[in-house]
Amino acid sequence: MAKNLDISVLLDFYGDMLTEKQREVAEFYYNEDLSLAEIAEHSGITRQGVRDSIKRAEFQLLEYEEKLGLYSRFVKIQSGLDKIIKTADELHIYLSQNSEASEKIQEIISIANDLNDND
Amino acid sequence: MAKNLDISVLLDFYGDMLTEKQREVAEFYYNEDLSLAEIAEHSGITRQGVRDSIKRAEFQLLEYEEKLGLYSRFVKIQSGLDKIIKTADELHIYLSQNSEASEKIQEIISIANDLNDND
Repeated sequence: MAKNLDISVLLDFYGDMLTEKQREVAEFYYNEDLSLAEIAEHSGITRQGVRDSIKRAEFQLLEYEEKLGLYSRFVKIQSGLDKIIKTADELHIYLSQNSEASEKIQEIISIANDLNDND
Repeated sequence: MAKNLDISVLLDFYGDMLTEKQREVAEFYYNEDLSLAEIAEHSGITRQGVRDSIKRAEFQLLEYEEKLGLYSRFVKIQSGLDKIIKTADELHIYLSQNSEASEKIQEIISIANDLNDND
């Protein structure tokens, strides 16, 4: 069973939509990197039960992404904000002698950084 | 039955998570502004059935927002992008004599506008 990195990100976005048990098992597997056998022992279900639960969780997470596209929207926003920050940084250096312009550029950088951290 | 404006926005975000019938009824009510009686006639269910379906849809939309917070995240991002655009616009006027700086500012404005349109 190959671990798909994207599933781990989808779990961050949509984990609250899973049942508590499903989420727990998926987090053990994707975030804590436990083996199926370890999760089985911890959760008191069979190894096959763990496998089924993870498969169901994956299916649901992918379905949520297909319907809501939250992850792809945020990847796009993040990439745009990174470009804004990069351009503003260049401008900041270029305009460092001009204190008024410099202040405004710093404001832009600060807002973009906040948006990047909090999304 | 008071129409809640926020529900209309939540419907845009999470409409794909409702059943087709539920979504149809909710869109008639919130987006097309049809009356319960008109929706009942169109959908071939009772007026009370329409009311119940809308109530259930509202409950689910609010629950999705509570779990995923998609709407509140986007309101926040949009407000940040608006501030970036406003500051960059001021800077653009201020630096209009400087073609290199002006070009970079325009780039920032253009990226921020794209993000605002496409989220």
